[in-house]
Amino acid sequence: MMYLGIDLGGTNISAGITDENGNILVKASTPTMNGRETEDIIDDMAELSKRLMTELKVSEKDIEAVGIGMPGTMDKKKGISLYANNLNFNNVNVVDEMKKRIDLPCYIENDANCAAIGENVCGVAYGNKNIIYITIGTGVGAGIIINGKVFDGSFGGGGEAGHMVIVAEGEECTCGRKGCWEAYASATALRREGRIAAAKYPNSKIYDLVDGNIKLIDAKTVFDAADMGDEVANGIVDMYIKYVAIGLVNLVNIFQPETIIIGGGVCAQGDKLIKPITKILNERVYGGELKTKICVATLGNDAGIVGAAMLGKINREEI
Amino acid sequence: MMYLGIDLGGTNISAGITDENGNILVKASTPTMNGRETEDIIDDMAELSKRLMTELKVSEKDIEAVGIGMPGTMDKKKGISLYANNLNFNNVNVVDEMKKRIDLPCYIENDANCAAIGENVCGVAYGNKNIIYITIGTGVGAGIIINGKVFDGSFGGGGEAGHMVIVAEGEECTCGRKGCWEAYASATALRREGRIAAAKYPNSKIYDLVDGNIKLIDAKTVFDAADMGDEVANGIVDMYIKYVAIGLVNLVNIFQPETIIIGGGVCAQGDKLIKPITKILNERVYGGELKTKICVATLGNDAGIVGAAMLGKINREEI
Repeated sequence: MMYLGIDLGGTNISAGITDENGNILVKASTPTMNGRETEDIIDDMAELSKRLMTELKVSEKDIEAVGIGMPGTMDKKKGISLYANNLNFNNVNVVDEMKKRIDLPCYIENDANCAAIGENVCGVAYGNKNIIYITIGTGVGAGIIINGKVFDGSFGGGGEAGHMVIVAEGEECTCGRKGCWEAYASATALRREGRIAAAKYPNSKIYDLVDGNIKLIDAKTVFDAADMGDEVANGIVDMYIKYVAIGLVNLVNIFQPETIIIGGGVCAQGDKLIKPITKILNERVYGGELKTKICVATLGNDAGIVGAAMLGKINREEI
Repeated sequence: MMYLGIDLGGTNISAGITDENGNILVKASTPTMNGRETEDIIDDMAELSKRLMTELKVSEKDIEAVGIGMPGTMDKKKGISLYANNLNFNNVNVVDEMKKRIDLPCYIENDANCAAIGENVCGVAYGNKNIIYITIGTGVGAGIIINGKVFDGSFGGGGEAGHMVIVAEGEECTCGRKGCWEAYASATALRREGRIAAAKYPNSKIYDLVDGNIKLIDAKTVFDAADMGDEVANGIVDMYIKYVAIGLVNLVNIFQPETIIIGGGVCAQGDKLIKPITKILNERVYGGELKTKICVATLGNDAGIVGAAMLGKINREEI
């Protein structure tokens, strides 16, 4: 049996058909063109799904279910996206709308949770019981799997590890509080520090790399400048990594999972991120011994598709 | 069927026999006299258990199992206390030793987890799926129950929420790191702030209450002085409550449990603690709505006995 997974993001809609072990048989993507009517976006999700079936020469009867991963909060039982600040999917019954277009069981899940499922089913955390997937991008999101199942608390809104305060009264966070991990460990935070530093040190490579156009500086600019040996950039990266590590130490102390996976754009840094983080964790976790494996996501953007596809398998097995 | 529960603490050994719903039928305690040989302490645990059976006119055949709650880290499967810094129970096979004295199945569990089980089985969090029990005393411990079962990570050492950093580079913690929640939210932290303030403000009631003998100041002294309207004490209590709340907000954002229970000596403050904490949480939790109930432990010291007793029931059901 096959499964269809859709990863609905603010920029792209990615979809794929997998076998029952989560191996992608075919995949494709189309721009979300965010800001449109939600119905038009759902039309495109359905059309992309049908295109994949055609390409694979299968029909709806060969597919077990459709799973959709998307940002924001949702009522999974009812299939309703309650609030997704980047997508305008507020109070939209995604499952009902999808079923009007494709006659298959349909499930929705938070995108970080989908990525966690993907890495757990056929990625770097294959077969682990307890894992945490941290996605570092505009914000810091978390997908938590406990005993092989997504954990998001008693009211479906847990897993907000990005909004764990690590610096009381610290930097302002988009959530309205101060000092959240996200305000220090997101790509946005690294970009912020890079821009402040470039303005302060016009001799730094950070400034050079954007020809003084400070608004062009992003997280990668800072990493690139650090790679070139720039002292200012290296200082920022060291501080950034320290803050990423503080949040990870907290999560290890609380969850002691088998694996913590770092995904999102920043994970492209690979060992440059993982090695210093692991070093700090080894020094700082409670009890003095780091048993949790820290690594970057191996499925990359595919984790979202795979995890979404596997929703059909997981949810049907639970019924 | 009946269950025997033992709560082994640094000060007292408390034990009780419960019915199958965790209701205590008889209980008693004896001083731990910490510092003795572990065998002598285990002798007393067994003797206390036998005394309770005699009192209740029952014998070993009426008891299903013995459960022991104790501080520190342990290998629950093997029944070994690995490390308990307040008890000197290092690499002691508590289960084997107990079985030599009482011929019954025996289980060990961390004391904060036992208290969580107790409150979950017949206390304030009766029937909840996800709860967190926070014990505030010398340190800050946590017992986490997820889907009705104790959660302590993949390697048995999770649940160390007290060692979640909330102030990067903040106060020194006993664990060797800086800025842990425990360094701000423990009774020890409140005592520390009370002593500092008393030395600085000899006109404060905190100073008065101990006749200037600053070493006599403990957490209760600060609460008592605050009750008397002392401005300095109220400032410290407000700050203390703010830090307790920061850690709780983090836990709500990550776990969104049905209930967070506050136990330990500080919980004697009742509403004076819960009301301002709940107010802060209502203002600060992610998503803007506090769905988690925050309350003090209702079983008091009995929670440890009940939870330990129920280990026999839980573990046997799992076999």
